[in-house]
Amino acid sequence: MNAMNLTRRFKAVRARTVELCAPLSIEDQLVQPMPDASPTKWHLAHTTWFFETIVLGAPDPEFNFLFNSYYEALGPRVERARRGMLSRPSLERVQAYRSDVDARMETAIAEGRVDSELVELGLHHEQQHQELILTDLKYTLGTQPLQPAYRTDLPRAASVGSPAGDWRAFDGGVVEIGAAGSGFAFDNERPRHRVFVEPFRIATRTLANRDVQAFIAAGGYRDAQWWLSDGWSFITAEAITAPLYWRGDEYYTLGGMRAIAPDETACHLSYYEADAIARWRGARLPTEAEWELAASSLDPQLGNFADDNAFHPGRGSMFGDVWEWTQSSYLPYPGFRQLAGAVGEYNGKFMSGQQVLRGGSCFTPRDHIRASYRNFFPPGARWQMSGVRLAEDGGRR
Amino acid sequence: MNAMNLTRRFKAVRARTVELCAPLSIEDQLVQPMPDASPTKWHLAHTTWFFETIVLGAPDPEFNFLFNSYYEALGPRVERARRGMLSRPSLERVQAYRSDVDARMETAIAEGRVDSELVELGLHHEQQHQELILTDLKYTLGTQPLQPAYRTDLPRAASVGSPAGDWRAFDGGVVEIGAAGSGFAFDNERPRHRVFVEPFRIATRTLANRDVQAFIAAGGYRDAQWWLSDGWSFITAEAITAPLYWRGDEYYTLGGMRAIAPDETACHLSYYEADAIARWRGARLPTEAEWELAASSLDPQLGNFADDNAFHPGRGSMFGDVWEWTQSSYLPYPGFRQLAGAVGEYNGKFMSGQQVLRGGSCFTPRDHIRASYRNFFPPGARWQMSGVRLAEDGGRR
Amino acid sequence: MNAMNLTRRFKAVRARTVELCAPLSIEDQLVQPMPDASPTKWHLAHTTWFFETIVLGAPDPEFNFLFNSYYEALGPRVERARRGMLSRPSLERVQAYRSDVDARMETAIAEGRVDSELVELGLHHEQQHQELILTDLKYTLGTQPLQPAYRTDLPRAASVGSPAGDWRAFDGGVVEIGAAGSGFAFDNERPRHRVFVEPFRIATRTLANRDVQAFIAAGGYRDAQWWLSDGWSFITAEAITAPLYWRGDEYYTLGGMRAIAPDETACHLSYYEADAIARWRGARLPTEAEWELAASSLDPQLGNFADDNAFHPGRGSMFGDVWEWTQSSYLPYPGFRQLAGAVGEYNGKFMSGQQVLRGGSCFTPRDHIRASYRNFFPPGARWQMSGVRLAEDGGRR
Amino acid sequence: MNAMNLTRRFKAVRARTVELCAPLSIEDQLVQPMPDASPTKWHLAHTTWFFETIVLGAPDPEFNFLFNSYYEALGPRVERARRGMLSRPSLERVQAYRSDVDARMETAIAEGRVDSELVELGLHHEQQHQELILTDLKYTLGTQPLQPAYRTDLPRAASVGSPAGDWRAFDGGVVEIGAAGSGFAFDNERPRHRVFVEPFRIATRTLANRDVQAFIAAGGYRDAQWWLSDGWSFITAEAITAPLYWRGDEYYTLGGMRAIAPDETACHLSYYEADAIARWRGARLPTEAEWELAASSLDPQLGNFADDNAFHPGRGSMFGDVWEWTQSSYLPYPGFRQLAGAVGEYNGKFMSGQQVLRGGSCFTPRDHIRASYRNFFPPGARWQMSGVRLAEDGGRR
Repeated sequence: MNAMNLTRRFKAVRARTVELCAPLSIEDQLVQPMPDASPTKWHLAHTTWFFETIVLGAPDPEFNFLFNSYYEALGPRVERARRGMLSRPSLERVQAYRSDVDARMETAIAEGRVDSELVELGLHHEQQHQELILTDLKYTLGTQPLQPAYRTDLPRAASVGSPAGDWRAFDGGVVEIGAAGSGFAFDNERPRHRVFVEPFRIATRTLANRDVQAFIAAGGYRDAQWWLSDGWSFITAEAITAPLYWRGDEYYTLGGMRAIAPDETACHLSYYEADAIARWRGARLPTEAEWELAASSLDPQLGNFADDNAFHPGRGSMFGDVWEWTQSSYLPYPGFRQLAGAVGEYNGKFMSGQQVLRGGSCFTPRDHIRASYRNFFPPGARWQMSGVRLAEDGGRR
Repeated sequence: MNAMNLTRRFKAVRARTVELCAPLSIEDQLVQPMPDASPTKWHLAHTTWFFETIVLGAPDPEFNFLFNSYYEALGPRVERARRGMLSRPSLERVQAYRSDVDARMETAIAEGRVDSELVELGLHHEQQHQELILTDLKYTLGTQPLQPAYRTDLPRAASVGSPAGDWRAFDGGVVEIGAAGSGFAFDNERPRHRVFVEPFRIATRTLANRDVQAFIAAGGYRDAQWWLSDGWSFITAEAITAPLYWRGDEYYTLGGMRAIAPDETACHLSYYEADAIARWRGARLPTEAEWELAASSLDPQLGNFADDNAFHPGRGSMFGDVWEWTQSSYLPYPGFRQLAGAVGEYNGKFMSGQQVLRGGSCFTPRDHIRASYRNFFPPGARWQMSGVRLAEDGGRR
Repeated sequence: MNAMNLTRRFKAVRARTVELCAPLSIEDQLVQPMPDASPTKWHLAHTTWFFETIVLGAPDPEFNFLFNSYYEALGPRVERARRGMLSRPSLERVQAYRSDVDARMETAIAEGRVDSELVELGLHHEQQHQELILTDLKYTLGTQPLQPAYRTDLPRAASVGSPAGDWRAFDGGVVEIGAAGSGFAFDNERPRHRVFVEPFRIATRTLANRDVQAFIAAGGYRDAQWWLSDGWSFITAEAITAPLYWRGDEYYTLGGMRAIAPDETACHLSYYEADAIARWRGARLPTEAEWELAASSLDPQLGNFADDNAFHPGRGSMFGDVWEWTQSSYLPYPGFRQLAGAVGEYNGKFMSGQQVLRGGSCFTPRDHIRASYRNFFPPGARWQMSGVRLAEDGGRR
Repeated sequence: MNAMNLTRRFKAVRARTVELCAPLSIEDQLVQPMPDASPTKWHLAHTTWFFETIVLGAPDPEFNFLFNSYYEALGPRVERARRGMLSRPSLERVQAYRSDVDARMETAIAEGRVDSELVELGLHHEQQHQELILTDLKYTLGTQPLQPAYRTDLPRAASVGSPAGDWRAFDGGVVEIGAAGSGFAFDNERPRHRVFVEPFRIATRTLANRDVQAFIAAGGYRDAQWWLSDGWSFITAEAITAPLYWRGDEYYTLGGMRAIAPDETACHLSYYEADAIARWRGARLPTEAEWELAASSLDPQLGNFADDNAFHPGRGSMFGDVWEWTQSSYLPYPGFRQLAGAVGEYNGKFMSGQQVLRGGSCFTPRDHIRASYRNFFPPGARWQMSGVRLAEDGGRR
């Protein structure tokens, strides 16, 4: 990418982050409602720290301690669970920090003094945090007694894709997955490699709220036979009887409390719930190879993304709406090499105890996603915009 | 108190609370750095809720849920540890709530429609929360990486009282303690009653930082022989090796980080530390009867109080500077009767697992304190402005 | 006590401990069902260690590590919660250890080479552990699915004392409490000293199961108004709805499961429950001074003690049956001096966070108790043989 | 298998379990030193319960509650962490239970009234618990202060296999893994299926203690760069600085404390440690497909197994010595179907949060292992007899 294009993209991505915060009060941007859900202010500062430290290579010692997330190579940092305790630096100070680093970045790009691949990594990093801002904010607002809306003017997602649930069949065999070519991809998507896939079918539609309601009505949350052992322990210990944010016949959305729409894609399900519901349906979750094979013929740009400002799933294609849990644990691809230097910690060190999710969600920026994109979360994660697409063994019928 | 005086006092106390918050940012007023240290915004709202609910008897259902502290009789409430999660209602909304309730209170007082004893209780309640605002805020600011000062223009406390450490001797015998007369006192200070006290001596001065430094230098924090069993477990589990806020040769004060002043009264000591240091000195803590007997001849108005705006202990009389731990557990006086109604929960239900502290501190409003005043905290509390005055057996020498 | 009498008493106390273990299997003597309830084998070894280490002054290094309970001055030791993990040394080895130390002790006593006061302390220590053997064993057996009886041939306790519940009235005034004279008493019972006591009445009978059943029927365990704040948190967190060992209409006793006898003294109540039930009855718990004053005219030898082998409360005097919770926290008496040396840790260091209980129980050896005897446990302790005697303000009516 | 052979095998396996317990005291067989390490007595009873309940289909209600491990379909059961609290039924009673069920099983086999596949499952189940008896016992004895040996007459394992460390290279391609044919295999080994494997090399020898010592000497346990994020949190939180059972230059073995032998296979490593050491060596762990491919040409009967009574690893083939961690998470094979009925819970419900280990160990019965055998444990498990074999990308050099 040439300097002008890089500058344009840098400005656009950075501006979008600020835009997402516009409806929020200073207080909304400070709260950390649980260790995994960081304050908006922290996200604003951390993404800026990434450019200052990783791209410009000029860390501010104080901000390096405050806003380093998990890079052991870059020194000690604020304990994750205490990010919401930082009333200082103020939001205003963080905003000034953003402006300052933006100016330095723009100069550096213009003068050709930056590694454009690192800039691109920083922008994709920023987009991931745009998604986290929305995800964490939903938890911040949605777990408060007053349950305030983020915005009350949000459009509803249009329903695209196949009208009725159906299966697409694949013959399998030796196929290739992983990022091809030289376009941007995270290190964990590489190398592109061969895998052997048995014949399988994958659903054209995600599971809807109607399906989850049927599982609940069938006593699914009280019947151990559908659950992984860890999953049963999890829902028992946490007293979970429905997806996160469900309260009776309503659920919390970024547009406020709404009646549960039966036809919308179900969201905020943990892997355990996704697996149990799939089992109850006599099906299973797809592997990530199956998912990628099925998605590779679709246009990633279609679908309901954060750019559409619905911030809630409709009912659509494999891309957008919800991140789809796969049966695959998050592990290195054959021949995986993590990036050199501190950014080597970006993805590789998390390759244990997590499941892969695919396809992006209504919280994901549209130009951030690819068929080969691997997201990953622990099986008990529910605050993510995650849902279910079924698969089953066997090919064309 | 007549209506005019009551109105004057009401306005003064309420205004002082607001004044204490003036140096704080919106963000400073939201943070809850641990379950025991509530956000300033919560204190502002809770004290207002007290007037609205207890005095005016007209609770707002939403605010009753949000700002009830611990009154079981008044219904369910936000979990204590989550007070800092409330970005809504905003600080601005809480300030408007204060103004609204102030207006209604002033009208009601003027029209004689309030129980003036309840108003007085509400004002003393507000003063307790003024103290907690400072106490909790010190924890909020003092445990952040940037350690910001609350104010940088704070005067230093003057040193009053006896110049050198010495003992005052008392003959003991049957004496009376507890609140006498009809002036305001909390229910737990009543009834005034007789106790038998053996001859004792009590120190004219509190322990100073110099004394704590000597204890540290003597290995006191590593030597089990000085400690209560629970205390030894406590400092071992928490890896405590010095008073709270000490970092090397400095400590955090509301005026920012300062060199530890050897002659100042030591503060932020738990009961366990107070007891251990007293034992190491070959002395003990006073009982609350001894303390009250010794204090009853002193003027409670003298001393370093919050009104002096030092917000840090100097070296003075039994009143002000630091709350002084006593050897007495917080238990009912003979013939104790808690107040009728919800306010019965104010003091009585906390009479287990806590120790009595006496005398007020540099965080306490001057006109809030009495010789009979009983404060109480669990033995591991360190974020309170608490210190040590020694006592020993035997009378005049 | 001369050597011959001391030897006789030494043999008798040591033999009684062994006798208590006779009905138990090797396995029964190993289990530690919770950190507070030590294995019988550990008690057998620890009491022997006390004589070897404290009295003979000749600690075995290995056994000193294994069987030191909490004496910091005597070095490190097995973590309390892991006492039940010690399959070695075997019970047989521990029994041989007892025989060996018994022989050495008897020789040393005969030869006048021991401090007879320390021997006496060791014997009272052994008697305390006889009681703990029964107490802890009840928890071991009573919390197992098979709920086995300790013995099936236990006699029922006779009902002695006043036939109907009534009050005894006392005028109070300046009275003396604490151990008088030179007979054996623990350091925490001394010095005898004066206290001022207001007029009070104390119940002639302990509360019976019938009274607890009435409290349950009145919804007492679900009504916050009767509970200390800590107590309400405690029963809520632990889901407590009845005394320990109650299962429906039956309870576990060392004689096995039995129908709850309405007229028997209620037992296995925590301080929180004792306080709540007293409050619900419109009364309160006695202070330890009140209790001791009332008990001082009674014969401590009367009552239902462990020597009677009922191991379950009947309905009787202030001595025996159940330890009676007092309103008094466990604190030092004025002028308290703990013993010199390691035995100084025996009592003094536990003087925080505990409540005093008085009178001994059906698990206590008869000749172990005195009117001045102070037992102490944390307010949540339920596995002790503890119950309730009511008191109220005011004197003769 | 005909009835006579089945009876012979039944008797042999059941007798071996009893034989393993012969050196143990009653007390050794009761202790549960952590929730994951069950008492020997429990293993003796649980394996018997399996035959009575699953094979004979005649559960005893009491024993079903006591000795059901995790079968939700078979009703409630004793909490796992409290298995060591059961002093009753006694070991003697459990032994009688074994004899009784043995007799009933032998009659039922002779009369052809049992499903021989379930008998075989029961025997493999018993063999798994023979291994657990040794594994759990090592923790029971090895974490006691006295560190007693299980037996002092244990032979040392002979060193077999390749003399020096080297690599075996494989071309990969589409290969088949999983249990073939109709011989016994667990459901999780089926179906045999194709996978695509890239060219790889696998070490001929496991890592030795010498290798772990080098990692320690290089500061490996203190350097985050080698660790998975979860692994770093794990060793930091648990203060882990060496393999389990290492104390200075010695380690605990079932033969007692011994000097660490540099050439022996390193054991009692968690997945996190295995992964970190592999990374530090510039290599990685094999996938389970790679492992199985490499092992398929070797004789599973060779190697150091429990039958050899060394109970400690030597240095040998891929079979025996230590279970070898693989990079593969424990997930269903394509087309996996769990067994019908309660035994469906045997393996399938544990398919989350665990890693696959392969090859059996010196605690495993020789005739229990297969190349396709999949063992699985959470990544933090250290009390298992687990070690490391390295792999690397690329084929023949």
